[in-house]
Amino acid sequence: MALLESTHRRKNPLTGRWVLVSPHRNNRPWLGATEAVNENVLPKHDESCPLCPSNTRANGDSNPDYKYTHVFRNDFGALTPNASEQLQSLESDSDLFIADEASGECRVICFSPEHNKTLPELEHDALHEVVKTWKENYTELAQQYECVQVFENKGEIMGCSQPHPHGQVWAHSHLSTEIEAEDTQQLAYYKKHGTAMLADYAQKEQADQTRVVFENEHWLVVVPFWAAWPFETMLVTKDNIQNFSQLNDAQTDSLAQALKVLTTKYDNVFNCSFPYSMGWHNAPANRGSDEQHWRLHAHFYPPLLRSATVKKHMVGYEMLGESQRDLSAETAASILKAASTTHYKDTAG
Amino acid sequence: MALLESTHRRKNPLTGRWVLVSPHRNNRPWLGATEAVNENVLPKHDESCPLCPSNTRANGDSNPDYKYTHVFRNDFGALTPNASEQLQSLESDSDLFIADEASGECRVICFSPEHNKTLPELEHDALHEVVKTWKENYTELAQQYECVQVFENKGEIMGCSQPHPHGQVWAHSHLSTEIEAEDTQQLAYYKKHGTAMLADYAQKEQADQTRVVFENEHWLVVVPFWAAWPFETMLVTKDNIQNFSQLNDAQTDSLAQALKVLTTKYDNVFNCSFPYSMGWHNAPANRGSDEQHWRLHAHFYPPLLRSATVKKHMVGYEMLGESQRDLSAETAASILKAASTTHYKDTAG
Ligand SMILES: O=P(O)(O)O[C@H]1O[C@H](CO)[C@@H](O)[C@H](O)[C@H]1O
Ligand SMILES: O=P(O)(O)O[C@H]1O[C@H](CO)[C@@H](O)[C@H](O)[C@H]1O
Repeated sequence: MALLESTHRRKNPLTGRWVLVSPHRNNRPWLGATEAVNENVLPKHDESCPLCPSNTRANGDSNPDYKYTHVFRNDFGALTPNASEQLQSLESDSDLFIADEASGECRVICFSPEHNKTLPELEHDALHEVVKTWKENYTELAQQYECVQVFENKGEIMGCSQPHPHGQVWAHSHLSTEIEAEDTQQLAYYKKHGTAMLADYAQKEQADQTRVVFENEHWLVVVPFWAAWPFETMLVTKDNIQNFSQLNDAQTDSLAQALKVLTTKYDNVFNCSFPYSMGWHNAPANRGSDEQHWRLHAHFYPPLLRSATVKKHMVGYEMLGESQRDLSAETAASILKAASTTHYKDTAG
Repeated sequence: MALLESTHRRKNPLTGRWVLVSPHRNNRPWLGATEAVNENVLPKHDESCPLCPSNTRANGDSNPDYKYTHVFRNDFGALTPNASEQLQSLESDSDLFIADEASGECRVICFSPEHNKTLPELEHDALHEVVKTWKENYTELAQQYECVQVFENKGEIMGCSQPHPHGQVWAHSHLSTEIEAEDTQQLAYYKKHGTAMLADYAQKEQADQTRVVFENEHWLVVVPFWAAWPFETMLVTKDNIQNFSQLNDAQTDSLAQALKVLTTKYDNVFNCSFPYSMGWHNAPANRGSDEQHWRLHAHFYPPLLRSATVKKHMVGYEMLGESQRDLSAETAASILKAASTTHYKDTAG
């Protein structure tokens, strides 16, 4: 199939941006930076960790002796409440110097009391609690803020400053650039077709199976046709839901299972704790419409390319032109499909 | 001034994307990854380097014994000529699976025969030759391709796989996502105001001086109001020129000087060889119009944040929401302004 071997571009219908695909380039030699693998064996509890149970944080607060998850406001959040009041008079002074107020709230979600665990190493009930915590925080913050961004940075090479398993929530009243782009694109598709873009997309991928990594009753994991990162995936609902607050118990349970399978497969690709940034795209909140053009979905953006130490750099051409990949989405999907669902650490002994 | 201290957003008028600015967050503690500084002393000539004069490359070609610059086709280019012929039947099969052919050419530009030099360490005449080489290659490739992307990845942390000083040119017939965005935005501004966006912008920054790092007769170096990377700069023409082929001798000379000053200042911020991706945005070629809405400009995207080893990671929130910065553009500009124009290596002894 010509599409898999020759250079071509694919368009991301959620953002309108393209990616350049150069499958022939997979075999070029690599002389550049490799990343150190942090093989430090971590303790189950670290006295100096601000996320471990019962420890005291920089601001003096103590963490409870939590059993599953624990949520607190980020002491160094990028967003703070009421910034708008401090900035009453901030207005665009032309088409060149455009600024706007931004207020919001940043929270940290500890995924487990155990310092040395990662998502694929959690039991099913613990993962179920993680999803429930995402849902609860989303639901609460969405009452006040239009845009509630739930995400996880995993691994030092993703800028994660804390090995303790955790994610974040940044909530604000404006729509972020990415949410605005996805909203615009999905709405245009809905107006044209009368159906939701991601519902149609999930159905077509399910029928074709080429890029499907895993599916269960309520969720589909697919390497999107337009994936930019080597092992990028999208985790998308099969149901008619637009945001976390709509998740019922069965969908929550099914999601916990999908998370376990996907993150286990990731770790098994290179037998390492697979770094990534992942996060949820919910429909904007509080618009008083039913948001039928949206489907709840998560993006996983992992940087590793060839091994635990060689990552894809989105640099020069990518920053100035557009994303570029060597490995095709179809090849990446077949590698992830083939990866075991038993974590490599569990098969070691 | 409230704008500098409270959280706010600024809009990039060239792309339409926003950046979240959190100046209060500058002082948060850092426990995450630090980057190794590669302090290896490199030889002037490296027998095993495919870019050094007189050496033989993987494909068997020998480099000439060049004095200033040397250009060759990338043996592992992401783009190859005539990909379109191999892909005759590639067509969008819906609004979800959108693909397009992409053919083009990738070249490597060696900036100096000396393996251990970087741009700020080159003499003025050598930098003049670098600019001339950019111009020549742009002019030749623009006869065949609409989009000619000249860029440099510098430093291992930017994925640069080769320490020998070099840049690249990727040329293709389609407009890349970034060029298309900048073209659309500049055209809309031109239609509304009857003047070029970047001409107006350069004038306002020149008048204000707050964000100006350096200027000479023909060029302005500014930390854009909407900068996303901590020490991001834009190098923009003061003249009515849209692309490299229009550069006259005075503009070329003035650009060589501006490059020397900017890259020297960068190295002096943290007394290290400052990594970055930089590249030129020319107006699209071959459209048969005079492209008065464009101005030729370069973007410098350097990742360092606090020291030679601590970089800004554009991860989680940034990938899923929008770019975020702590250091304000104004503070970054004042640091760059204050940095010496004598390279730290020259003041050491
Ligand atoms: O061409 P190089 O230097 O080997 O490769 C580098 O620059 C390219 C263009 O920005 C990127 O696509 C690669 O990810 C990066 O490693
Ligand atoms: O909040 P953290 O984990 O300290 O910081 C990390 O994630 C943030 C949100 O994606 C980024 O803005 C930072 O650059 C990154 O280092």
